[in-house]
Amino acid sequence: MSSSGWILAVCLVVLEGGRHAVWAEEGSGSERNCSAIPPYLPPTAVNTTLRIRDLRASMIPLNISAYIIPATDAHLSEYIAPRDARLAWMSGFTGSAGTAVITQNKAVLWTDSRYWIQAERQIDCNWELERDDTFDVYNTNLAPAGRILKSIPDNLVDKIWTGRPPLPPDNPIRLPDNVIGRTWPMKVEQIRAQISDNPYKPTAVLLSALDETAWLFNLRGNDIPFNPFFYSYTLLSMDEIWLFVHIERITEELKVYLNSSCYHSYCVQLLEYSSVRSYLQSYLQKLNVRVWVGTEYTNQALYELITPEDKLLTTTYSPVLTTKAVKDATEQHILKEAHIRDAVAVMQLLVWLEKKVPEGTETELTAAHFVDQCRSKQKNSRGPSFETISASGANAALAHYSPSNETARKLSVDEMYLVDSGGQYLDGTTDITRTVHWGKPTDFQKEAYTRVLMGNIEISRSVFPAGTRGVNMEMLGRRALWEVGLNYGHGTGHGLGNYFGVHEWPVGFQSNNIPFQEGMFTSIEPGYYKENDFGIRIEDIAVTVPATTKLGNNYLTFETVSLVPYDRKLINTSLLSPEQVHWLNKYYESIRSVVGPELERQALKEEYDWMMKHTAPFLSAGASAVISSVTLLVTMLPSVLLHNLL
Amino acid sequence: MSSSGWILAVCLVVLEGGRHAVWAEEGSGSERNCSAIPPYLPPTAVNTTLRIRDLRASMIPLNISAYIIPATDAHLSEYIAPRDARLAWMSGFTGSAGTAVITQNKAVLWTDSRYWIQAERQIDCNWELERDDTFDVYNTNLAPAGRILKSIPDNLVDKIWTGRPPLPPDNPIRLPDNVIGRTWPMKVEQIRAQISDNPYKPTAVLLSALDETAWLFNLRGNDIPFNPFFYSYTLLSMDEIWLFVHIERITEELKVYLNSSCYHSYCVQLLEYSSVRSYLQSYLQKLNVRVWVGTEYTNQALYELITPEDKLLTTTYSPVLTTKAVKDATEQHILKEAHIRDAVAVMQLLVWLEKKVPEGTETELTAAHFVDQCRSKQKNSRGPSFETISASGANAALAHYSPSNETARKLSVDEMYLVDSGGQYLDGTTDITRTVHWGKPTDFQKEAYTRVLMGNIEISRSVFPAGTRGVNMEMLGRRALWEVGLNYGHGTGHGLGNYFGVHEWPVGFQSNNIPFQEGMFTSIEPGYYKENDFGIRIEDIAVTVPATTKLGNNYLTFETVSLVPYDRKLINTSLLSPEQVHWLNKYYESIRSVVGPELERQALKEEYDWMMKHTAPFLSAGASAVISSVTLLVTMLPSVLLHNLL
Repeated sequence: MSSSGWILAVCLVVLEGGRHAVWAEEGSGSERNCSAIPPYLPPTAVNTTLRIRDLRASMIPLNISAYIIPATDAHLSEYIAPRDARLAWMSGFTGSAGTAVITQNKAVLWTDSRYWIQAERQIDCNWELERDDTFDVYNTNLAPAGRILKSIPDNLVDKIWTGRPPLPPDNPIRLPDNVIGRTWPMKVEQIRAQISDNPYKPTAVLLSALDETAWLFNLRGNDIPFNPFFYSYTLLSMDEIWLFVHIERITEELKVYLNSSCYHSYCVQLLEYSSVRSYLQSYLQKLNVRVWVGTEYTNQALYELITPEDKLLTTTYSPVLTTKAVKDATEQHILKEAHIRDAVAVMQLLVWLEKKVPEGTETELTAAHFVDQCRSKQKNSRGPSFETISASGANAALAHYSPSNETARKLSVDEMYLVDSGGQYLDGTTDITRTVHWGKPTDFQKEAYTRVLMGNIEISRSVFPAGTRGVNMEMLGRRALWEVGLNYGHGTGHGLGNYFGVHEWPVGFQSNNIPFQEGMFTSIEPGYYKENDFGIRIEDIAVTVPATTKLGNNYLTFETVSLVPYDRKLINTSLLSPEQVHWLNKYYESIRSVVGPELERQALKEEYDWMMKHTAPFLSAGASAVISSVTLLVTMLPSVLLHNLL
Repeated sequence: MSSSGWILAVCLVVLEGGRHAVWAEEGSGSERNCSAIPPYLPPTAVNTTLRIRDLRASMIPLNISAYIIPATDAHLSEYIAPRDARLAWMSGFTGSAGTAVITQNKAVLWTDSRYWIQAERQIDCNWELERDDTFDVYNTNLAPAGRILKSIPDNLVDKIWTGRPPLPPDNPIRLPDNVIGRTWPMKVEQIRAQISDNPYKPTAVLLSALDETAWLFNLRGNDIPFNPFFYSYTLLSMDEIWLFVHIERITEELKVYLNSSCYHSYCVQLLEYSSVRSYLQSYLQKLNVRVWVGTEYTNQALYELITPEDKLLTTTYSPVLTTKAVKDATEQHILKEAHIRDAVAVMQLLVWLEKKVPEGTETELTAAHFVDQCRSKQKNSRGPSFETISASGANAALAHYSPSNETARKLSVDEMYLVDSGGQYLDGTTDITRTVHWGKPTDFQKEAYTRVLMGNIEISRSVFPAGTRGVNMEMLGRRALWEVGLNYGHGTGHGLGNYFGVHEWPVGFQSNNIPFQEGMFTSIEPGYYKENDFGIRIEDIAVTVPATTKLGNNYLTFETVSLVPYDRKLINTSLLSPEQVHWLNKYYESIRSVVGPELERQALKEEYDWMMKHTAPFLSAGASAVISSVTLLVTMLPSVLLHNLL
């Protein structure tokens, strides 16, 4: 699944002027038109007049001139629970990236170009849409105003939000022992070692991101769609462990598991989720304490509590996130296992589509449903890891498209089809994209596909010193495209976890990702998108493994753990280097040897045959060059031979 | 010329304890031994007892607890004038990178590992050498002390430095019109346009780096070794231009050239060099002013004057540095011309060495002298652009080695030889490295050389979107080495100017370099160094030019402007891809067509023949693969043909 890697920041702003649009239910077209008389609003737009009125009223007694509503939650989560969808409720806009600012006479929504059309369909004329999507402009215009950014303990939106969804009902659960390499006390020990080794002498680490706490205690929950997280914070010192959760959700069994009845250094003290601010404040009253936070996942309200400055230690990522980035032997093993079963599900989809699409009965939605169903039947399945992107033809050229009843295209032998999907399994999270064509692709489609594949292979086969940053290798994913003037507008890969978020930072190829070490899992996903025509993405998950080099030590390379063949019909082998063909053949061998037995075990004969057919070795370009030279020679040689013979 | 890209920062520190070593003139060995009784000091060490005593005495009345002495000058220059070599005078240490901190009971020198041995030979036992060369450690240990960093108007070292060299005698000169594309008023206009376009509304730009002022006014000087700079600052507002120089050095002709007798917006007001602080302060007293500085080249003493914060606008580089980075048509043309003549000088060296080395008469020093002489005879020569690195065998494995009488090796057919040299010409600066072998290189030497060359070619032939950062392509220079577990420990390239510094930032492949645009010149210089054995570096200057791609617009590639063939004997063509061989042959064609006529014009027949011989086209690896397959076929075909014939 591709990710655009946006970094969100909030600024307090003062905005002058404003348009007072009138709500209207009539007219035609799918985007609002606030300059029409009367203004036109599509049926998809939400009437926000009363909400904005209520929010403005609540700002006055607190002397707030501008109220900022981000798209994320208090844990800076990528996916949020419905009860945290404050921006969507206030504005009607449901895109995953955006920020609203409301003053007494203006309401403005910032979002990036991916979402402009969607926003114009969802917001009413109370709102201005700010199309300048670069953070620079946002910052430049507003920073000089010199206003004070202040957090307030209560969320004003929650106060006026009638019908806000309640806390999800599910309790956190512990992971079974067979998917755990390190018990939670071992992990606590690892983090404490880093606290005591840190030269700035922190005394505790504050964990705000939901996956930090879930990882530390080997717990999972069900509060967030697609992500097995539960609302939580952790404050971990050398002597004590404080876990902030909705205590009523912690079963007696979990309390025992967490040693919650004692007060020693390996006993988890359970505190109410909402008490994190006050508890952090009281911790900071102690003498000689210093709290270590990772700035990327700590919200402003907690961050600003940690004063004076000498009580604060910041790094970009908490030690939990950097430790979690390196999978231990168990984690690596089970994550690979999950990918084998996941490959079976994806092959089932591809086999099924190959048969059904020519009949004209399937759509993007039925295909998405089918692959979700196939995954759900695999061992340890816990549902999809994100909403399946199932996109045909021009739809595949839209970043972050997911089919709906309104948009779903019928699948056809005349269009390319892209499916980006993933599963949650108790032992791992998966994410894979394949692009296929069931008819006759154009030469340009083949060239673009082959160059995307070359990008994937060039990263995958690279040998590099441990400690190399992904961002410094990322261009290998683009180079074959650049050569002919093509490119793509998203990132090239993101980390991935063991039954965790499908975008598990800070591993990946973005500029703020950490250097590669052995045992990190990342997606590799170059693409190419031709507007209004087609989209290509080839995404695999790979793990960094030691590389044997002739002369050096401490080198790494990638081992691809997603095991589904690419569409041969779309590969123009004459563009590939011999090294690329060699890599491809070795990859196909590993699909045969690793997924083959699993297909047999599951008695999937048809899928087995399909896999064998699609993983037949390729001849290298060098070989075919020789063959064409041979053809020439065959026509030239006879006269020579004849001469010798006669 | 390679550059390690160190970033220097200064911190005020308090150091406890200390060793009070005794000066001694006896003993043997080349490095100091302060724990011997009595301590041993080599003859190369400098007695700093009196200097340190004097400095400490001068600190007391000013209430300074620690005094920091950086290796650079007030303009953060890479090369400094002898009068600015304060660190060397105080400590004896003459390396180009280092920082000294002196307290009442301690004197500590920080430098990086390149210089540890040199420091142990040069400093006496008054000094402690801090071998932790990472900035992290430096910062970590000292920052928590929380001391105040303060600049003082007078340099304490200058006050006690008896015999400090005077200001160099040469006056600044203006460039002749034929090497100027933009007059200085045109450049002033360009920078003012950026001032007025900046959304933060600066009112003036302060230029501290010496090449900023030299560039703006098309002036050059002779104050700094190898660099044609003169001591200066500029403050440029929308209405006025203030140039801070030693006014007595500005001739009447230059005053006319600079319109220095008027006060309009295109008149340069000359102010005394030393008045920059007081003048800046008085400018800041005005209402609504905001001074724009580039933080990378502004010293702390000026930076801290710009208060309150809303009077300061910082970017990493000033608009002059980013504008200067893109060469205009004239600059590109003359810089290429300079490289043609420079190639002649380097070929003269290589031809001469090929003849002389087998006779056993030449050394690293005579070779360095010879190439410097060859350059000096070329048109517009203004001397070397840095001290020639002429290194044979194990000496070439030392980064930043330059030969001296003590170290110079005899050149021999049994050793590899590396020569990294460059010239200043009125029309351009050059920098090129070639590595050669006059005897029989080992297979490993050939493989290493070929892989270094592959790195150079892979960067050079890359096609990439305008705006790509060098740091994101830099790994292409290392990839062929990584593949077999080899690497190198320096940067991969740096910008270069028109009769300017040989390291002209911010162009290049470092992480703090700006994105590539058309018309930027950079070195491309991968290498490989085998300790105590040999060193390889292949360095060319290249300019970013538009690339024609099949499908896209706004793509760039490199055009190599250094035009000297590589040592064929060291190239193992079987490692090269067909694309690399193709690039190499095209490059050699351009050497023939561009340098050939110049060699003929200079009537250098022997060099012409040498060049033609060394630029003969290579057969591609693909071609030879076909040939060997054919051999197989020829042995297989007859039976088939016979069968058909019979």
